[in-house]
Amino acid sequence: MLSVKNIISIDDLSQKDIESIISRADSFNEVLSRDLKKVPVLRGKTIMNIFFEPSTRTKTSFELAAKRLSADIVNFSSNSSLKKGESIIDTVKTLRSMIMDLLIIRHSDSGVMDFIARSIDVPIINGGDGKHQHPSQALLDLYTIREHFKSLSGLKIAIVGDIVNSRVARSDVRLFRKMGMDVELVSASMLLPEDLDYFDCNKVHNSIDDVIEYVDVIYMLRMQLERQSRKFYPSIREYNRYLGLNLERIARMKKGSIMMHPGPVNRGIEISEEIMNREKDLKDISKINQQVKNGLAIRMSLIYLALTN
Amino acid sequence: MLSVKNIISIDDLSQKDIESIISRADSFNEVLSRDLKKVPVLRGKTIMNIFFEPSTRTKTSFELAAKRLSADIVNFSSNSSLKKGESIIDTVKTLRSMIMDLLIIRHSDSGVMDFIARSIDVPIINGGDGKHQHPSQALLDLYTIREHFKSLSGLKIAIVGDIVNSRVARSDVRLFRKMGMDVELVSASMLLPEDLDYFDCNKVHNSIDDVIEYVDVIYMLRMQLERQSRKFYPSIREYNRYLGLNLERIARMKKGSIMMHPGPVNRGIEISEEIMNREKDLKDISKINQQVKNGLAIRMSLIYLALTN
Amino acid sequence: MLSVKNIISIDDLSQKDIESIISRADSFNEVLSRDLKKVPVLRGKTIMNIFFEPSTRTKTSFELAAKRLSADIVNFSSNSSLKKGESIIDTVKTLRSMIMDLLIIRHSDSGVMDFIARSIDVPIINGGDGKHQHPSQALLDLYTIREHFKSLSGLKIAIVGDIVNSRVARSDVRLFRKMGMDVELVSASMLLPEDLDYFDCNKVHNSIDDVIEYVDVIYMLRMQLERQSRKFYPSIREYNRYLGLNLERIARMKKGSIMMHPGPVNRGIEISEEIMNREKDLKDISKINQQVKNGLAIRMSLIYLALTN
Repeated sequence: MLSVKNIISIDDLSQKDIESIISRADSFNEVLSRDLKKVPVLRGKTIMNIFFEPSTRTKTSFELAAKRLSADIVNFSSNSSLKKGESIIDTVKTLRSMIMDLLIIRHSDSGVMDFIARSIDVPIINGGDGKHQHPSQALLDLYTIREHFKSLSGLKIAIVGDIVNSRVARSDVRLFRKMGMDVELVSASMLLPEDLDYFDCNKVHNSIDDVIEYVDVIYMLRMQLERQSRKFYPSIREYNRYLGLNLERIARMKKGSIMMHPGPVNRGIEISEEIMNREKDLKDISKINQQVKNGLAIRMSLIYLALTN
Repeated sequence: MLSVKNIISIDDLSQKDIESIISRADSFNEVLSRDLKKVPVLRGKTIMNIFFEPSTRTKTSFELAAKRLSADIVNFSSNSSLKKGESIIDTVKTLRSMIMDLLIIRHSDSGVMDFIARSIDVPIINGGDGKHQHPSQALLDLYTIREHFKSLSGLKIAIVGDIVNSRVARSDVRLFRKMGMDVELVSASMLLPEDLDYFDCNKVHNSIDDVIEYVDVIYMLRMQLERQSRKFYPSIREYNRYLGLNLERIARMKKGSIMMHPGPVNRGIEISEEIMNREKDLKDISKINQQVKNGLAIRMSLIYLALTN
Repeated sequence: MLSVKNIISIDDLSQKDIESIISRADSFNEVLSRDLKKVPVLRGKTIMNIFFEPSTRTKTSFELAAKRLSADIVNFSSNSSLKKGESIIDTVKTLRSMIMDLLIIRHSDSGVMDFIARSIDVPIINGGDGKHQHPSQALLDLYTIREHFKSLSGLKIAIVGDIVNSRVARSDVRLFRKMGMDVELVSASMLLPEDLDYFDCNKVHNSIDDVIEYVDVIYMLRMQLERQSRKFYPSIREYNRYLGLNLERIARMKKGSIMMHPGPVNRGIEISEEIMNREKDLKDISKINQQVKNGLAIRMSLIYLALTN
């Protein structure tokens, strides 16, 4: 039902594809609310989770999604074979020769997915490639926004923080713009990418205070400390001052607006300890756990659609 | 059927809870003796094994127990997410948001379980927390003793070795005392804990020779070499002399008495190489493999009861 | 149906055993060509994959084979328990006490399998032991050759490269000789083993050019860089000159002959980059991916036969 075989980039998906993914996720969310949360739709299918980068939530979320659909899933992480000096493409071809039905791949090099896709005949889902794309994250973010606001048109979203290192930002902005939302960026000059045109966003700000009172969604990015080759930002104190969310700023948010984060949160950097410790009180505002929950339904939907295309 | 939602500490369990756990383990042991060792009672349930500390037997035993009950189980070990600096509680909340039915958690900090339990709505089973508690080990130990002696009342057990670093000792003593057994400790002053009152034991000895001839159970603790911040004991030779089990001492054991160890054994420290190499000859005395076997039935019972409460 | 309980060495298998394994693999290959690639024949059986050495393809291949047969499989890798100083035999006994039906073991010490087999009552499949044996690899290699040539008798095979460090070479030569094939070795004096008699091969050459034009199968070994305690070979350039396969040599191969490699390939050492990048054009000659594919059927066959003996 999708117009594409592989789910590699948000840019490849049509509006109709996105609608199909969301609508299928709706039906799987209904399954997840049952006592028996498993459906036998992919019994006998085999999926491989190939993660060349460490990951917690994405890998586990795909693994669970596969099991909820009754598929078999095998995890492969990079440590073993690459010790022997095997090239990535040889590894992927080997794994594919074991007669898999679908590969889910995460890799640190931007764009390696297209190269793999050209060499392999089974569908691929991109589980995150370098600073490039993370389509399942963008789709679960969209799903979470739509679940809260019902209609997307005219919504204003601000994406805050470490844009240059973030595949989430790249995927999110492209998807939100495609769906007719207004996107504004809040960042520092050294955290902005050179290809800002690609983002096609409506405005760029220097401080979260510029937008906090009028946006519908404040989307806090994770500071990608591990991807910074040099020090990008002067200090945590400076970061907090312009780009961090604290209780005082939460109090100034527009009524009905929400806060999101792809996780895991650097407590005390992009979001304050106090906010994280008061998640129960803030559950109408903070959608972090809801994003994780919806990730399961979205990934069930992506796996299902990729395998029944 | 249990009086508690979470299985965190032996101290929380009533006599009736313990009876329920044992009686359910009996019926699962019967399942394990069949040719088809799997029962469909937890089909569709999802369990997560969250191990923040390395573990072989406990993690594998819980994984197998879950599979024998037809539940889906996903392993999570700490290496991935904690590299990104995520706090434990955020990790556990994230994992729980993936709509798990039960979490099994091991963590090196004593008492972290209660903190997690307060933040999470699904049941938790403690797979071992620091030097504090290891309830599934204590229950399988009790089960193994009861299997051998039928009745527990009046049994005398000596627990030998590195008490201060041992969560097994803490859980075992509390459980054995609760069930009306006599517990004596055999240790050196530097291997005894400061809160000896908590143990509520009947006597403390300095040498295994003091007890070897009259106890019904000699329970050898693992020397926790990896948990010692400083050197606690002068030498292995000294350890062997007062606290090690060898063939000569085995020969002096009371008729019908048994030897236990939670594993893995440090060969040549708490138990001699000769004993370990002659396990077949000593199978009426050494219950080490039987403990592992009963661990499976006990963990099936704990998982089953936690999920059907 | 097999004459042996354990599958440890090619030398233990009778001609009839080998025929049974191949014939069962044929029927599982047929299953793997269906849309639903899973059969319920081992439902309720539990298998443990115990890998004391890192491995990608063998471990994953056994895991998939088990799942295709509807068995439960639990992976155990060495990092956890051996940190605690447990001996191998204690680890294996512990794992076996968890009531497994079959153990698949890889270990770096040659001959450790026999030691384990004497201590354990369930069947064992050797997943590779040191430089000694790798029976499932030899059987999948035989299967791949037979699939291509139909009849084995009179076939000439050259095994090229790092013989001394290769358990694949040891297992392959013994199996190919047993099945009536001619085996010639191509290697350098420092890459040949001292016990050359064991190999029972027909001839030894110094250069791939000696054999490339008349053999039916050119079997390229992986240069075991990680197992070399000292530098065995002067340089990669020297290696390429005498023992490496390149497009020029491929062009001189006998019509209908094939090239094999157990993987993972060291690109640019035993096989040139150009060959690896043109795998699609060379698919009638290079059987590398077919070997991986057949590995699944052979391992399904081995597991099935070991468990239904």
